[in-house]
Parts: sequence; C-alpha cells; structure tokens
Amino acid sequence: VKLDDVITSARNPALVAARKLARGPARARSGRFLLEGAQGLSEALAAGARPLTVFATPDTAQAHRELLAQAAEAGAELRVVTDRLLAGLAQTLAPQGLVAVVGSVVQTIDQADGPDALLPLPPSPRMVCVLVGISDPGNAGTVLRAADAFGADALATTAGSVDLESPKAVRASAGSLFHLPVIAGAAWPRLAGVLRDRGLLLIGADPHADATIDQVPLERPCALVLGNEAHGLPAQVRGDLHHLARLPQYGRAESLNLAAAAAVLLYACARRQRLVTGGQR
Amino acid sequence: VKLDDVITSARNPALVAARKLARGPARARSGRFLLEGAQGLSEALAAGARPLTVFATPDTAQAHRELLAQAAEAGAELRVVTDRLLAGLAQTLAPQGLVAVVGSVVQTIDQADGPDALLPLPPSPRMVCVLVGISDPGNAGTVLRAADAFGADALATTAGSVDLESPKAVRASAGSLFHLPVIAGAAWPRLAGVLRDRGLLLIGADPHADATIDQVPLERPCALVLGNEAHGLPAQVRGDLHHLARLPQYGRAESLNLAAAAAVLLYACARRQRLVTGGQR
Repeated sequence: VKLDDVITSARNPALVAARKLARGPARARSGRFLLEGAQGLSEALAAGARPLTVFATPDTAQAHRELLAQAAEAGAELRVVTDRLLAGLAQTLAPQGLVAVVGSVVQTIDQADGPDALLPLPPSPRMVCVLVGISDPGNAGTVLRAADAFGADALATTAGSVDLESPKAVRASAGSLFHLPVIAGAAWPRLAGVLRDRGLLLIGADPHADATIDQVPLERPCALVLGNEAHGLPAQVRGDLHHLARLPQYGRAESLNLAAAAAVLLYACARRQRLVTGGQR
Repeated sequence: VKLDDVITSARNPALVAARKLARGPARARSGRFLLEGAQGLSEALAAGARPLTVFATPDTAQAHRELLAQAAEAGAELRVVTDRLLAGLAQTLAPQGLVAVVGSVVQTIDQADGPDALLPLPPSPRMVCVLVGISDPGNAGTVLRAADAFGADALATTAGSVDLESPKAVRASAGSLFHLPVIAGAAWPRLAGVLRDRGLLLIGADPHADATIDQVPLERPCALVLGNEAHGLPAQVRGDLHHLARLPQYGRAESLNLAAAAAVLLYACARRQRLVTGGQR
C-alpha cells in the first residue's frame, strides 16, 4: 500500500468522477456509489462487495492500513487525499476520513425474467418489505436497517422511489445494504406479480385502514407494502393488495414517521410468524 | 390583521431576537422556541400554547388570514417579512412561509417538589418514555411522535439530552410536542425516584440484554428508558432499573436506529397493556 502520493487538487480526475456519484444520474450511468467510513468499507468487504477506489486522508490511511490492504487485495485502487478534499467528497458534517467508490449492490427485477424472476429471493420467502414511491433517503435507509434487523428476505423499491445507494440512504442503512437482497426501481405490476407467484400475501400499510395489523394474517408469508411519506399508497397499488392494515394508535399523533411505522410492522410480522412456527423458520 | 407593513431589514430587532432561538442558550434564557409552518401554529393554538410573534411572508399571511387572526387573538404580534428574511429564519430547505415564536411548553421536574412532584403525570400513569442523553434532535422528535401515537402519558429527558424545542426536534415531533406532557433536563436520580413513587417499573432498552421484551413485564405500568445513540445507558442508570430488555432481532443488523427501536418498544408495551386490560385503560 503506497501512501505517500497525496492528491492535492480538486480537479484530480478520479476525485471529480467520485464527487459526481453524490447525484443519481451519475450513479445510474456508472453502476457505482459512495460509501463513507472505515466500518462501512469493512462491512462491504465482508459481504463480498467490490470497492473500486478508496479515498482516505493520510491519518485515516495510516490508522486503517490493514483494511486498506484488504481493499487493495479485493481490487480497489487506493488514493490518499488531503483532509479538505476528503471533506468535499464526504456528505456528513463529520467526515470519517474515508470514502470508497463501490460497485452497485442493488438488483433490478428485469435482470431475471420468466419463472426465475426475482432471483434474489429464497424459494419460499416469508417476509419481504416493499417501498412504493418513498422520497426521503434517510427513511429508506432506516427501513432497510429495520428489515435487516427483523430478518426480511429482501427489500424492494418501485420506480420513482428514492435511490437506496444515495449517500444519505447508505448512511442511514448502516451496513444493511450489504446484508439482504435489495431490488430497486421495479415496475409495480411486475413486482406484485412476482411476489404473488412466490406465495406472498400483499399487505399494505395505511393509517386509515379499517383493520389493524392484529386483524390481518401477518403470520402467513407476506410482502409488507409501504407508500410515500405524504401521499401513501397509490390507488393502482391498493387495488392489487390482499389486505390493508393500520397500526393501532392510542394517542393523538396523526401518524407515525414512515420509518418508525415500518419498524413496528416488520417487528409485528416477524414475531407473529415465529409464534406460529414455534420460533423456527 | 395588518399585513402591509413588511419588514425588509435583517437587522430588525424582532427578527434578530427570533433568529437567536435556533440556538439552545437563547431558548433557555428566553423560555421561547421556534415553530415552523401553518399546521404547526394551528396545532399549537389548538393545544393552548402561547405564540408570541408570528413571522410570515406576504403570500403566506394572505393565504392564512384566519389562522393569523386566531394567533393575534391569542396575543401574538404579527410581522410580515420578505421571503428572503423568512427563509433565513426557517431551518428547513423548503421553508413554509411562516415561523412562530412560541412560549416553551416543556416542563422541568423541579417546578414541582415533594409528593406532588412531576405534576404533569396522571395519578396512575401506565407508560412513560424516558430519554437518557439522546443526542440527535431528529431522533428525539421522532420518539416523541411515537410516544404520542402509542398513548404514552408523558416523555421525559434527562440533563444532557438534546433539547426537544430545538428546530429539528420540533419538526420531527410533528405537533406531538403539544399533545403530551414533556419533562426536560431532569436529574436522573430524582426522575427515577419520582417514577418509582408513581408505581412505574423502570425498564431499560439494551441490545445486549439477556431478556427480550417478551420476557419482561411490559403489561405492568412502566417507564421505558432509552439511552444515547452511540453509548447506550450509563452504568448509574442501569443500576437503578428493574429490568433490561432487548428487541428480538432475527437478521444481521447490529441494532435498530434509536427512534425505530423506541417505536417498537412503545408499540409492544401499549399492546401488552391493552391485551391484559381487554383494550381498556
């Protein structure tokens, strides 16, 4: 690992290309995204993700020599940059001294077609989380983290949802992006068809539903479908669902924050499924 | 409502004083905080909170004449300001054209002493949420919103926790700041004593606890105690708790986001209490 060749120019081509990945079109074009911090890189490597370039400040490069050697072994190019340039690349207020450019890990539903569609799902999935038109990257990342914590088989987003590989979503997902299959930008009708073909009940969350989540069969294999923060689930999607359900609310808040509601729904579903199967899956 | 006297100078004394409320010391000194948007102001008025000044852009003042008249009736001074000055006062990227200066609604535990301490609690509280040293204002506001949604009797923060009247926390709480009693900045030993005196079990959340939340008596009246995002519950607090419990986790995420974990815990507690009492409280 050669660490003495420090990039000092903001116009360095590798740095310019990396900075562009903060925006969606450049991510879509290149199939790459930005990952901040040594822990993020470490999880990415553990999950077999491909880091292409790792930018680090001199201090961080020194402190994480082993991790950088591992990244280099996995094929990453290492670039030491000044603190100021690293800060310009990182999106957080407290940059962690390291930003990696990583090959996209989300999958599109169209990569597999026919009876084998949606390959990232196990043959008999139990719980899948679906985000329809979610717009806040922090929410999306937090839902992905909750889906991971409660053992979802996969998370899918529909076309028009925020990109789970945007810097804010990656940060909020806290490594979960590398823990379970993520299907991104699916057309709803096709996604709904594939989920039904895999034996999943489609259960939508709606604060105005008649039934509470205790009154719908969450113990069966199901896809939990959540809509946009402001507008909820579109009519087209509602028409395709088997059930709509709301969380019981006992206080005065009009609704929960989307990510909090998703966490409760995922918890309730995972718990019911395990009560029925005696803790086994 | 006189709307034609538009403030155009950033040095206007009322505006200068209001801008300072984005920072904690000025809020503590003045006992006032900032509230954004017409809906926020409407909820504050409905809850009997005292708006002292309302700043609005000409367009927003026009669109919300009735609300402004209501605010004026409640004693607020109305100030029309240019779009640019309003944007400078609002903390969001998409300012909603209205910012109110409101008298503080949080209470301190020391305002009441002796057997009547913690007056904002009902005589027999069932569920109280306690935040110990929480540092992220968005998390704190989101937990307050969840506490409201699941019918907590009150939310308390200990000294050293983020201010629930900071702009980001107010925004994340989405009106819940006006829906349930909030006790702020309590000294832990005193808060713990008062909660025990009111018959509450102290149950702390800890991802490394032996027991899951299914194995502790959440159906009894309890205070749910959550620690700092990075450091969890301090040893001093742990020693005072009746139980420590973790959420069941079935996937690989190391832990849930604090606000998501709080939402699940509040939901599980509210649900258990209602199953035991047959839905009654």
